[in-house]
Amino acid sequence: MNSAWDRLVEQLRVLRNISSANELLGWDQHCYLPRRGAGPRAEQMATLAAIYHEKKVDDSLWETIEAAASDSALTAEQGRAVEETRKAVERARRLPTDLIRRLTQKESDSYAQWIEARTANDFNVAAPLLEEIVKLKQEFAATLEPSLPAYDVLLDQYEPDATGAEIATLFEEVRPALSDLTEKLRPFSDHSQGPFCAPFPSAEQNLFFLSLSERLGFDLDRGRLDLTVHPFCSSPSIDDVRLTYRIDEADIFIGLNPLIHEMGHGFYEQGLVREQWGTPLAEACSLGIHESQSLLWEKHVLQSRAFAEYLEPLLIQRFPDAMGGVQADTLYRHANRIRIGSVRLESDEVSYGLHIIIRFELERDLVEGRIQVKDLRDAWNEKYREYLGVTPDSDLRGILQDVHWYAGLIGYFPTYLLGAMNAAQLFETWTERNPKFEHEILSGQFGNLLEWLRQSIHVHGKSYPARELMKRATGVEPSPRFLISYLGEKYLTLVAPK
Amino acid sequence: MNSAWDRLVEQLRVLRNISSANELLGWDQHCYLPRRGAGPRAEQMATLAAIYHEKKVDDSLWETIEAAASDSALTAEQGRAVEETRKAVERARRLPTDLIRRLTQKESDSYAQWIEARTANDFNVAAPLLEEIVKLKQEFAATLEPSLPAYDVLLDQYEPDATGAEIATLFEEVRPALSDLTEKLRPFSDHSQGPFCAPFPSAEQNLFFLSLSERLGFDLDRGRLDLTVHPFCSSPSIDDVRLTYRIDEADIFIGLNPLIHEMGHGFYEQGLVREQWGTPLAEACSLGIHESQSLLWEKHVLQSRAFAEYLEPLLIQRFPDAMGGVQADTLYRHANRIRIGSVRLESDEVSYGLHIIIRFELERDLVEGRIQVKDLRDAWNEKYREYLGVTPDSDLRGILQDVHWYAGLIGYFPTYLLGAMNAAQLFETWTERNPKFEHEILSGQFGNLLEWLRQSIHVHGKSYPARELMKRATGVEPSPRFLISYLGEKYLTLVAPK
Repeated sequence: MNSAWDRLVEQLRVLRNISSANELLGWDQHCYLPRRGAGPRAEQMATLAAIYHEKKVDDSLWETIEAAASDSALTAEQGRAVEETRKAVERARRLPTDLIRRLTQKESDSYAQWIEARTANDFNVAAPLLEEIVKLKQEFAATLEPSLPAYDVLLDQYEPDATGAEIATLFEEVRPALSDLTEKLRPFSDHSQGPFCAPFPSAEQNLFFLSLSERLGFDLDRGRLDLTVHPFCSSPSIDDVRLTYRIDEADIFIGLNPLIHEMGHGFYEQGLVREQWGTPLAEACSLGIHESQSLLWEKHVLQSRAFAEYLEPLLIQRFPDAMGGVQADTLYRHANRIRIGSVRLESDEVSYGLHIIIRFELERDLVEGRIQVKDLRDAWNEKYREYLGVTPDSDLRGILQDVHWYAGLIGYFPTYLLGAMNAAQLFETWTERNPKFEHEILSGQFGNLLEWLRQSIHVHGKSYPARELMKRATGVEPSPRFLISYLGEKYLTLVAPK
Repeated sequence: MNSAWDRLVEQLRVLRNISSANELLGWDQHCYLPRRGAGPRAEQMATLAAIYHEKKVDDSLWETIEAAASDSALTAEQGRAVEETRKAVERARRLPTDLIRRLTQKESDSYAQWIEARTANDFNVAAPLLEEIVKLKQEFAATLEPSLPAYDVLLDQYEPDATGAEIATLFEEVRPALSDLTEKLRPFSDHSQGPFCAPFPSAEQNLFFLSLSERLGFDLDRGRLDLTVHPFCSSPSIDDVRLTYRIDEADIFIGLNPLIHEMGHGFYEQGLVREQWGTPLAEACSLGIHESQSLLWEKHVLQSRAFAEYLEPLLIQRFPDAMGGVQADTLYRHANRIRIGSVRLESDEVSYGLHIIIRFELERDLVEGRIQVKDLRDAWNEKYREYLGVTPDSDLRGILQDVHWYAGLIGYFPTYLLGAMNAAQLFETWTERNPKFEHEILSGQFGNLLEWLRQSIHVHGKSYPARELMKRATGVEPSPRFLISYLGEKYLTLVAPK
């Protein structure tokens, strides 16, 4: 007779296999699905999602969880995995199928409406459905945990163990520093084109991205790269991690940045422990931790001075015409140019945090009823004036710029800034422990860093809450001071007179 | 309240969505799966297959079938769909999960053993597992229909409503004609290389195949093409039909033939009726009908004299170096060259039928216990001597050449020859009704033929048994005489002195 733990793992793997299949269907939807195949694909994915939920709330799983929970032979990690599973399953069991159906339907309608609103460049087109989404999210939160603030319940899906109040305090602490720094950088804001002399041909970029992925340590026997419009990382299994990237012939960094970002996510997924597959021990700790991996590789490695030196000869060799006389220093300055404006995805690393804080504050107020959808555009524009000193010139480049809320992702935004804080703290720890890191980057050795992240973060899955994982990895409590000092040092130096 | 029929359609669509998802996973496995992702993928597919079976044997589906069967308001087609569903579900309900598990496991082991046996070029390596497969298939047949001959039960999965005895009679009738014709053609057997002057570059072949697919009428808004080792057609939905093809730079026909073959399958899948999706009314009638569609396009269109004329300028334009001075007549003769030998996939259209008859006779005798696996190699070689006048020079080019039996596909082979007969009968009907067909092919108009196949075959799904469908489409009972006269006329003319 197998132990309750073994039976639990077996049942969880069935669940994971279903969600893995759905993950592949979603990947294909963005990469290779024929235009008119979209309808049937949505139906296939809805069927798998419904079966997933059925299996998750089935009494036989609940019984196994109960049996495992009372097994005294569990290790501490197994105990935590059982508790994490119990929490997730308990919540799923509280959700009526009808509410799930209404949410899914409304999110899909609202996404379509967002597309229309963008075409019309008018928030009013999207507002009615957004209002319904907010109401459904409130109902969802009240159904799951009637005693908790609604926002906390939504946040918990992405950043377990965090609360809205905690994050509000944290962000209030960070905001003045980001604002000050943004003010100092404002005169240097630069929205000009890149410094390149000719196009970077697509076919060559494909080859370059593939070879760079290998050099960085992405395992192409256990993953792949494909071209899409919006880059993402998908992982149907630990041994099948898929990055997508985009290409812009005018500027290779337009494809390179998202690729390395997604690769950071991909490293995490490839670094989970195969033996624990299906259990929370082989799941990412939180989105704030996941994002720390992508931002560490994107901001701290790719956008570093040393990486520009490493990149220069590789780019010159592959793209001699485009590079012309461009050298490492120019690459470095281009990758880190200051961009203060109303659009999150066009912003620099410093003002980016302010974009996130605005979204967090608004979405929390929305869900907890302190602001209404009808007043949202004004509130958005007002906060942009106050925090960033800019006014969106249109809804398209203002309140309609992100898909998140319209697709039902409320409570997601703060994980971007948590990720940036975690990334800065991790990278500072790494550079202190490994003073040769610049030399390693210069000479294209990324293995030590990846191995350290594997051991400090990846292999642990959900063994610890995010705060504890960070403390174990860095020796100190998570704190925003690492991000603030990193940003100040880097960007004030960049704009200082030579 | 919905009618029982509506409820049945809804439940069948859930089943179809699960198998569609699995179909996509299988497609991806052959096209894009990273090398080390194979293990987890097999596990995902096994999970979906198990869920599919669970849902198929669930009492709620059975109750809906019973309710629908007693609904007097059904159309004749709906009535047939309910009966087809009842038959399939009844059989699934008779199958113990344990037997399915043992079969799936053994088929996968045996496939692996076949690969090893091929490396060793020794049938004895594969024989023990093949013996177990045969035993399991006998058990499977006896479980499903204890009163029927075992072979008939297996055959029924691929060619419903046919029996082993019927097919034996049919093949005995055809064999002398195929043997006679093969004898007449033997002096002209030609295993030389193609007539081409230079390689056909891969990149150009990709583009050429894509544009040719469009010219033939394959809807690329509802389908796609990808490169693989072994070409196949996969259809996750009517609006998502995927062909795969291969490329050989030495000879474009090595890729072209399988592509057009798979396209014939793809036309069928794209031509099913969207409104009936999930029910037997939007499923292919039988494999013998499916294969008629692929062979019609491959043998009767692509390998026709008129198509060679049509192809000549297209090939010259795209591949001027490879084509050199090659003209339509040479293309036609090359596409239809006589190849009499021991390998099915290297054979010509005439001797191909004899390869199939050998396999059919042997697999039927195996399953019904008239021959043992230990005697199979001798029996195989003996039949090759007798029917084809050749002796395989190795197991690799003899009894180990096909994967089918080792992967559990027993009862499948005869559908290839049934398909050839159906294709010849359909094409002769078409050319009689449309005397302009050669002119149409010459001028690249394939729409009338495709539309006729849509209306005669595709839209009917499983509305009628294969024999009746053929009779409705052609006005006469299915008969081998169309194939025999077509082959005789075509190939005797080809080898006649000019």
